[in-house]
Amino acid sequence: MRCLVPVATNSPKSRLAPVLSPAERRTFARAMLLDVLSTLVAADCQPTVLATDSIDDDQITNRATIAVDDRPLTPAINARLAEGEPTLIVMADLPLIEPQDIIQLTDSDADVTVAPGLGGGTNALAIHDPSFRVDYHGASYLDHCRAADEVGASVETVDSRRLATDIDEPTDLAEILIHGDGAAAEWLTAAGFELDTTGGRVGVVRE
Amino acid sequence: MRCLVPVATNSPKSRLAPVLSPAERRTFARAMLLDVLSTLVAADCQPTVLATDSIDDDQITNRATIAVDDRPLTPAINARLAEGEPTLIVMADLPLIEPQDIIQLTDSDADVTVAPGLGGGTNALAIHDPSFRVDYHGASYLDHCRAADEVGASVETVDSRRLATDIDEPTDLAEILIHGDGAAAEWLTAAGFELDTTGGRVGVVRE
Repeated sequence: MRCLVPVATNSPKSRLAPVLSPAERRTFARAMLLDVLSTLVAADCQPTVLATDSIDDDQITNRATIAVDDRPLTPAINARLAEGEPTLIVMADLPLIEPQDIIQLTDSDADVTVAPGLGGGTNALAIHDPSFRVDYHGASYLDHCRAADEVGASVETVDSRRLATDIDEPTDLAEILIHGDGAAAEWLTAAGFELDTTGGRVGVVRE
Repeated sequence: MRCLVPVATNSPKSRLAPVLSPAERRTFARAMLLDVLSTLVAADCQPTVLATDSIDDDQITNRATIAVDDRPLTPAINARLAEGEPTLIVMADLPLIEPQDIIQLTDSDADVTVAPGLGGGTNALAIHDPSFRVDYHGASYLDHCRAADEVGASVETVDSRRLATDIDEPTDLAEILIHGDGAAAEWLTAAGFELDTTGGRVGVVRE
């Protein structure tokens, strides 16, 4: 099935501003994207990065086709879904995912298979029903379940910690240091981040 | 295999103090425990609640045996592990778990199977190696992987969002309202909590 990875190229990951500069957020977002693309390629997908602006970066173009669409996420995705092809959509900030997580999505028999993110978002969708449309605003996981229901599509929810772990906020960085072994983990370590085990949940500190 | 659910009966869930009174935290913790025990029974386990004090509550004693041990979590569990029996340990604050998540743990061929929690904790352990001991302090997931390695035990990590979602902090309550359908979800709804979709990640508000 077709595989899309939406990417907003301008000022990504704004909620990491307390711990990373704008330039750092860009290079860190790129590292996470490389992890996601490598996993998709290892799972035999041929990803297309659906970017708000052109991307001139060998490491990305070696792993993916680039398609430019400067519309916001929801209309940009829905324009592709309107073409009626089965489509896998995977967010670019999931550096922990492994090939078997993607295969769980692509092998599902449901019309719409959803991987919820922590806090009610939608981190991945495998869509076989040509009438299903996305809406990424707010608690999109519940909205997507309802939307599938409304078009009579069967829904499966994937239960995966790795697919659920999107990296948005400073505390999320701990998950990469605990479980990651790819480009994002290397970048964070090189940038001086380490685990902080002094509080309740493990956080991060920067040297 | 033997199945233990450790429970601290005095002042549970202190990190929920910003949104729940001490009495509410006790009844909410009980609702989560009932969800966990129901799932364990449905997965053909015969759970023992390892409690710091006696529990006189029909709904709990209908689902589990009670064993009292007033020591802290780590020594209380390790005293049981020293008896050498294969043991499943499941935390009491995992109201989203389903029987198949437990079966993933009990069916694993590894000497030690770990379900990490968000933020580096350990939410469940299936232990077949009689020399393995727990240490629940700090980033216990990484510590448990290392401890297994040190005694030559094979390790498997279970990838489950439901097993990873322990309920410690106010934002965690959103996960129950999004995904839950048991006693904890009913309790929260009856207590006036609803989803708050105004921020980045979905949170909760109380009426």
